[in-house]
Amino acid sequence: MKPKKVVSFGEVMLRFSAPNYQKIEQAKRFELSYGGSEMNVSASLARFGLEACHITVFPKNLIGQKAINYLKELNLDTRFVKLCGDRMGLYYIEKGASMRASQIVYDRENSAFQNLDPEWFDWEEILSGADWFHWSGITAALSQSAATACLDAVKTAQKLGVTVSSDIYYRSDQWKYGKKPQEILPDLASYSNVLLANALNMRDLLGMEMPEGEDQFERTCRNTMDQYPTIKKVVNTERIQISSHHNKLSSMLFDGEKLLNSQETDISYIVDRVGGGDAFLGGFIYGQLMYEDNLKSIRFGTAASALKHTIEGDINLADVSEIERVMEGDFSGKLKR
Amino acid sequence: MKPKKVVSFGEVMLRFSAPNYQKIEQAKRFELSYGGSEMNVSASLARFGLEACHITVFPKNLIGQKAINYLKELNLDTRFVKLCGDRMGLYYIEKGASMRASQIVYDRENSAFQNLDPEWFDWEEILSGADWFHWSGITAALSQSAATACLDAVKTAQKLGVTVSSDIYYRSDQWKYGKKPQEILPDLASYSNVLLANALNMRDLLGMEMPEGEDQFERTCRNTMDQYPTIKKVVNTERIQISSHHNKLSSMLFDGEKLLNSQETDISYIVDRVGGGDAFLGGFIYGQLMYEDNLKSIRFGTAASALKHTIEGDINLADVSEIERVMEGDFSGKLKR
Amino acid sequence: MKPKKVVSFGEVMLRFSAPNYQKIEQAKRFELSYGGSEMNVSASLARFGLEACHITVFPKNLIGQKAINYLKELNLDTRFVKLCGDRMGLYYIEKGASMRASQIVYDRENSAFQNLDPEWFDWEEILSGADWFHWSGITAALSQSAATACLDAVKTAQKLGVTVSSDIYYRSDQWKYGKKPQEILPDLASYSNVLLANALNMRDLLGMEMPEGEDQFERTCRNTMDQYPTIKKVVNTERIQISSHHNKLSSMLFDGEKLLNSQETDISYIVDRVGGGDAFLGGFIYGQLMYEDNLKSIRFGTAASALKHTIEGDINLADVSEIERVMEGDFSGKLKR
Amino acid sequence: MKPKKVVSFGEVMLRFSAPNYQKIEQAKRFELSYGGSEMNVSASLARFGLEACHITVFPKNLIGQKAINYLKELNLDTRFVKLCGDRMGLYYIEKGASMRASQIVYDRENSAFQNLDPEWFDWEEILSGADWFHWSGITAALSQSAATACLDAVKTAQKLGVTVSSDIYYRSDQWKYGKKPQEILPDLASYSNVLLANALNMRDLLGMEMPEGEDQFERTCRNTMDQYPTIKKVVNTERIQISSHHNKLSSMLFDGEKLLNSQETDISYIVDRVGGGDAFLGGFIYGQLMYEDNLKSIRFGTAASALKHTIEGDINLADVSEIERVMEGDFSGKLKR
Amino acid sequence: MKPKKVVSFGEVMLRFSAPNYQKIEQAKRFELSYGGSEMNVSASLARFGLEACHITVFPKNLIGQKAINYLKELNLDTRFVKLCGDRMGLYYIEKGASMRASQIVYDRENSAFQNLDPEWFDWEEILSGADWFHWSGITAALSQSAATACLDAVKTAQKLGVTVSSDIYYRSDQWKYGKKPQEILPDLASYSNVLLANALNMRDLLGMEMPEGEDQFERTCRNTMDQYPTIKKVVNTERIQISSHHNKLSSMLFDGEKLLNSQETDISYIVDRVGGGDAFLGGFIYGQLMYEDNLKSIRFGTAASALKHTIEGDINLADVSEIERVMEGDFSGKLKR
Amino acid sequence: MKPKKVVSFGEVMLRFSAPNYQKIEQAKRFELSYGGSEMNVSASLARFGLEACHITVFPKNLIGQKAINYLKELNLDTRFVKLCGDRMGLYYIEKGASMRASQIVYDRENSAFQNLDPEWFDWEEILSGADWFHWSGITAALSQSAATACLDAVKTAQKLGVTVSSDIYYRSDQWKYGKKPQEILPDLASYSNVLLANALNMRDLLGMEMPEGEDQFERTCRNTMDQYPTIKKVVNTERIQISSHHNKLSSMLFDGEKLLNSQETDISYIVDRVGGGDAFLGGFIYGQLMYEDNLKSIRFGTAASALKHTIEGDINLADVSEIERVMEGDFSGKLKR
Repeated sequence: MKPKKVVSFGEVMLRFSAPNYQKIEQAKRFELSYGGSEMNVSASLARFGLEACHITVFPKNLIGQKAINYLKELNLDTRFVKLCGDRMGLYYIEKGASMRASQIVYDRENSAFQNLDPEWFDWEEILSGADWFHWSGITAALSQSAATACLDAVKTAQKLGVTVSSDIYYRSDQWKYGKKPQEILPDLASYSNVLLANALNMRDLLGMEMPEGEDQFERTCRNTMDQYPTIKKVVNTERIQISSHHNKLSSMLFDGEKLLNSQETDISYIVDRVGGGDAFLGGFIYGQLMYEDNLKSIRFGTAASALKHTIEGDINLADVSEIERVMEGDFSGKLKR
Repeated sequence: MKPKKVVSFGEVMLRFSAPNYQKIEQAKRFELSYGGSEMNVSASLARFGLEACHITVFPKNLIGQKAINYLKELNLDTRFVKLCGDRMGLYYIEKGASMRASQIVYDRENSAFQNLDPEWFDWEEILSGADWFHWSGITAALSQSAATACLDAVKTAQKLGVTVSSDIYYRSDQWKYGKKPQEILPDLASYSNVLLANALNMRDLLGMEMPEGEDQFERTCRNTMDQYPTIKKVVNTERIQISSHHNKLSSMLFDGEKLLNSQETDISYIVDRVGGGDAFLGGFIYGQLMYEDNLKSIRFGTAASALKHTIEGDINLADVSEIERVMEGDFSGKLKR
Repeated sequence: MKPKKVVSFGEVMLRFSAPNYQKIEQAKRFELSYGGSEMNVSASLARFGLEACHITVFPKNLIGQKAINYLKELNLDTRFVKLCGDRMGLYYIEKGASMRASQIVYDRENSAFQNLDPEWFDWEEILSGADWFHWSGITAALSQSAATACLDAVKTAQKLGVTVSSDIYYRSDQWKYGKKPQEILPDLASYSNVLLANALNMRDLLGMEMPEGEDQFERTCRNTMDQYPTIKKVVNTERIQISSHHNKLSSMLFDGEKLLNSQETDISYIVDRVGGGDAFLGGFIYGQLMYEDNLKSIRFGTAASALKHTIEGDINLADVSEIERVMEGDFSGKLKR
Repeated sequence: MKPKKVVSFGEVMLRFSAPNYQKIEQAKRFELSYGGSEMNVSASLARFGLEACHITVFPKNLIGQKAINYLKELNLDTRFVKLCGDRMGLYYIEKGASMRASQIVYDRENSAFQNLDPEWFDWEEILSGADWFHWSGITAALSQSAATACLDAVKTAQKLGVTVSSDIYYRSDQWKYGKKPQEILPDLASYSNVLLANALNMRDLLGMEMPEGEDQFERTCRNTMDQYPTIKKVVNTERIQISSHHNKLSSMLFDGEKLLNSQETDISYIVDRVGGGDAFLGGFIYGQLMYEDNLKSIRFGTAASALKHTIEGDINLADVSEIERVMEGDFSGKLKR
Repeated sequence: MKPKKVVSFGEVMLRFSAPNYQKIEQAKRFELSYGGSEMNVSASLARFGLEACHITVFPKNLIGQKAINYLKELNLDTRFVKLCGDRMGLYYIEKGASMRASQIVYDRENSAFQNLDPEWFDWEEILSGADWFHWSGITAALSQSAATACLDAVKTAQKLGVTVSSDIYYRSDQWKYGKKPQEILPDLASYSNVLLANALNMRDLLGMEMPEGEDQFERTCRNTMDQYPTIKKVVNTERIQISSHHNKLSSMLFDGEKLLNSQETDISYIVDRVGGGDAFLGGFIYGQLMYEDNLKSIRFGTAASALKHTIEGDINLADVSEIERVMEGDFSGKLKR
Repeated sequence: MKPKKVVSFGEVMLRFSAPNYQKIEQAKRFELSYGGSEMNVSASLARFGLEACHITVFPKNLIGQKAINYLKELNLDTRFVKLCGDRMGLYYIEKGASMRASQIVYDRENSAFQNLDPEWFDWEEILSGADWFHWSGITAALSQSAATACLDAVKTAQKLGVTVSSDIYYRSDQWKYGKKPQEILPDLASYSNVLLANALNMRDLLGMEMPEGEDQFERTCRNTMDQYPTIKKVVNTERIQISSHHNKLSSMLFDGEKLLNSQETDISYIVDRVGGGDAFLGGFIYGQLMYEDNLKSIRFGTAASALKHTIEGDINLADVSEIERVMEGDFSGKLKR
């Protein structure tokens, strides 16, 4: 059987991590890895055995070549990666401990990706044969040209019958190029099938009414779905932060009729929480494509996200059987030989 | 006073550890150490001040020479180590975190040790003056020649009045050379004085009847001792696995009449659990030889095992006073200056 | 507004840390940093934006030059550091885990600092314009000449109206040069304004009567203040040690009339506890100079100390806003972008 | 224009390198990389922009998965890599200096590759559309099944008109499975078009007569070509070893009529000489496919090999323009910005 | 005696170095340091015991704070460093070997420094009491505002009688903001006293006539001095590049009347050549201020530059006595105890 | 045949090496090893297969225990190592390059060894069965008690017929405890059989007349042997220092009648020159005991010393066959598989 095929679109950044628990000010070297919300999602799916193709732009120099090598190593299809421009966005991270917070410093302005030309991407070709397309609001927030490319992509996806998931789980203060999210995102949402958002996102970014009360999320979802009839599901994650090392995770899905809730997963020792949300989405999409069961999708996504927290770097390297074991409640960490 | 002398026999493997919490797939270098169940036991005892001699086989090349250096550094007597053959068994390990399990990949087939010739070892000379001999079922599982060498050793030990401890705490699926454990282990058990085993081991490996019920362990021990009258004590450890970082340990000993139970020890932050069982045995044997008190032996062994979980590598590097402090209930980790 | 100015005096040692959780016996390399109780205090204050000047002695060689560079990097004023002598005191540290204790081995005898000549320091010039002077009993314990320099300093400070804080939180067994603490410390205490000590310190080092009972600390403080009328405040920290990773911290201040107690702060994952007491003092002095509020001073000091436990090395690298957040009870470790 | 396509077949080993100039006995960690004569060749070609597909066998475990990731990172087509078996061949290396020799210890017996089943490879499919197939004598030396797979491959290649290069530059003492090279290699040679061999190889492995005299290589080539009419070119490299750091390289090609000689290239500071011969072949094949000029092919190959000596690991990471610059005699190492 | 005081102005970049001889594509971590042509010069002078103040701009975040710490560690006066903006320029470097060239990839566009506001710098205050001001053409090439700040600085320097050295040893292709060097540099040169330039620089950047012939440099200098009467000395360095490891260095100075030539210095093993030219200038300025002898200045500068090539990073950490020893011809590298 | 047995006596220091070519000021970690002139000699001999016992004193703490482990790893007999005192001598080293010299900073005052009690060593027992005893002048220079222990040792050695080699190749400025070398060394020399010294040592330390002229060494040796009739051989090494990376070594021996000269050995790339002289002595003593040929002894010693220069650390890890190959003139560094 042909494996399912997923396409994602978004910036990939160099990640410079201060070693161990060193603060950035203490670091004399940085560990190098990569991360980008949408690529993190498709890397999960490549690992789960699906065909995954990531679309991005890297600078046309040694740094860009190195980044492509990395995507290949992750088993991502890089045929449509564009090499152009001079610099790669990057971020620095120091890891918190106990009550000390982790800190990220971004340096992504004027990146090769931000300066992309929407004409570079032939979405008909790229999305041909795909089952799922994933993008996120951060891409639309980077530049007008990136937003335009998103719109081209989702329109084409809808035309070709490719399911579109839209992660708009981002802050409105990220929009720096003169447009407000409300000017850009509604159009993009109208070509979406699955939305990752909380109630505040739907209110602030899509302009939905957000009623007060216990069923706030559910009712805001209903409002959204009323306005955007292509959106059939809204998913959301919740994180209780006890300390830098200790979080509790859960997720929910509204399918237009009822609200489904995943298990709550306790992560008692966090190795690296960056990419936890993307790991959820990777797991969720896997569930949608392979289990075709909404509850199992968010349960699998939540377990995938929990395991991601135990792995260094943005990318979830857990495999399906490992996630299923956690999904079924086995937290023992029993040594595998 | 002459220190007590202990002899152990078994394979020593190279251990390649992925750094920190990296998965094997992420590692670009491996930290190098060594481990082997029986050597781990005698290394504990060398550290506690006893004379300890380990018998093994290393390949006759740079890798074997390096391994001998390591045993010397541990203060083990290496006079009887045989250098022969081409390869050293090895294993790769990645460390789990929270609900993610640690994983070990073995690569020990066709090792120098597996291909040993039982004629190489003059057990009369090796065991001369020894107080204790330790071996384990994994050795008997490796090859017919290794099993034969075990049998030679335990027979000679019995003849010379050397106490024999037999750790058969292993899985039956490790037997690959055509023999079943039931064809080999009973003969070896008949020359043993102390057995490390749980009820399932006694049933599966020695063919004992294992009654149901709360006193299952005790009754299976009685059955074993009835059949193997040289066996005077059976010890066993129990591990409750809350997560990769958090375990609870305890141990028990049946002396033919009554069941003794150690304290339960909470290990709230595990650094490295490999070798934890061997550290128990090292502590237990120390207790047998130095305290001559069964309860104190399992209490000391349990505290030794707990401390091993806080130390990198297979070998327990805790010393006697440190273990006694933990045995007495001090878990404060108060800074020592 | 001119920033407040603080001066401290004391030895700075090289610190050799075994990597990660390695024991000293396992280490093949040592991570290099620096520490010294009084310098740790002024480094905190430099970081908080105050002008901080540390007085010490380094050997006149590459090792001493390297140490000066380090103090400069910490933004400490090094104009009065004396380069003389051959060796720098040093200490080795291995980090404990769970019930295994951290261990420190000192090698500080005959250091350049210990052999200082009190004539080297022109305290009138050094303390000119200062708001606060800090020293500790460990300095007085090192050598007669170091004790003499302390006395010169505190006398000058009192003359110039500079507040003097005296940390006598040290053990009496550190006094090796022939004098007992009781022969030296009382004179020094008589020129102090703020004392860091517990009841035992006041009894053993200053010869105070230490009544039994729940209000022991408070009553011993009263005795001390009766005898040393310049002392206006006594502060003390308390640490509950659950394991090497888990401590609870609190502090108290007696202002001559009432006892103030800080919040108790839970540190659920300790990265490095060395320098925790100095971080408290740094925070406390900051509170005294900037908040001019005793309760807030010990609350800020306790939060500063807690954050220090999450940072590698002797020095507290947390900044004011981070500490205030923890002081106000936010332990969530929420990622800062 | 469709890029040229190359297929190679052979074992890939894990490579454990002692850091810097440490001897294996000193190493506490090993840097991890990969190497295998034939893969090294195709990795060069992938880097030069050709389509390169490597055929090999990896164990079906974490170690094998990691190895596949690595090949992907090198931009090799891994579609036909077979995952089966338990262990990966490996080798340890320490780097020499000055008059001290580098040392390699192999541990490759019983590897997944050695135990391959020739039926796994459908060479018609694998070689479809290929321009070149490369294999080496070391593969034929590993096991009967590996030799059989080689024969299947070269027969199919000849049938499909794919050029076959055969590197028989190996020692006869590597043949351990009961066959002599003379029983296996002649058959394989008869399906070859380009041979890498020196005169001794042709004599010892193919049974050619090797006349004495200055034109020994040329005359032995003639004998070989007489007997193996499909062989149209024989290439050979020469290395003058002044020290571990300093070698001189050259190469020659006999085209059936005349002997062509490359430049002699001085490598004054060697970083890592392993894979130098494979880098020559990679460059040579590039020259054959892209320049279609024999002299330029060995000149480019020699420059490629020289640059490989300045790069860590088995794989030549130099690119075409860099090699051409060296081929044209620029050794200045002028900083590129 | 008051030490001489030097002020420099220019961008400081983060430097990410691939470890050892790894190519950027191989690196999994980068060693972190800093470099910037003008700062490199003043860091040399701070090390030689002069008072040195560097003027630059760092981003107002953790990365900028870290950079300031570094300048302090180098003993540079950072009082006038401006914290503003979001990003720090950076560059990646891989080290060549033998005939393989080192490579640098810059990522410095839109840095905090490039976007500086000339109003930030009160040059009257900054240059008060200074003996020397140093800037370079790369600063003028970055942006109009940086060029304006340069002009403000050199004008003020001339007014205050501070000697100005101008390093225009840069390529014309670095000018990207719309101005040509010929539109900017002549004005700046007219406020200079010492010029670092070769004949091509004087022709291309200042528009001087460059006659052919052996005395080309000397005659171009005369032309320059005719046009720019404040310029009293032109210095230049020459580098013969034998390989990445082996260079020969010399320098020359034209004083308006005669050409002085330094010794030629052979560097047989280069550790890191970046910053070699800046080390020359640092040494040269030291000679001008301390020896007041032109020949000795270029001899000391050349020796300083040679020693820099043996030191990791952009900064010359050699001290005066070490440089004088090399200047006098001692290349033995005799161990200093 | 019983292996020859060698005993040595002297201090062993911790060695802290700045990584790669970092200067001490740049280092953030130090690589840890050990060195001591006399231990370096016996470690060579242990490696060559002789029985070697080193006598020293280590502090009675974790640092001393770690040091003993190291000696055991080197296969040295540590039965007579005394654990007493608080500190271990240590030294810091940075590695030079090209014309930059390596630098060592010692911190060995007041070490456990320096404060030894001569009564601790029962030389009759220690030297029983030994063939050779080695000591050096640095030990006699450390303290009166160390000198006394040396004297006890050499007297006993002479009584027992053990050959004594005395390395007085040290500077007179190392004598700090109030005695001049001329007050101590002559007595020690009178119990020696083999002397390592150059003409200046014999003049300055033993008070010999040193005639001018080409045969200065030979004639000074004659004078020494006249005065010290037990001395039968004087050996000396010569080093031509071209750069930090490039030295030439040779050695000579005067046997009372004629002067023998070794080959001159070119070391074109030095990894670590510390311990080079000790490696010569280790090789020389091996030659004396195994070859019983003076010329071969200095030839083997010179080759051993050359190989030591290619190995990190104080200890020569080359083996006999490797040294013999170099002794016979093979400098090719040909890869060993």
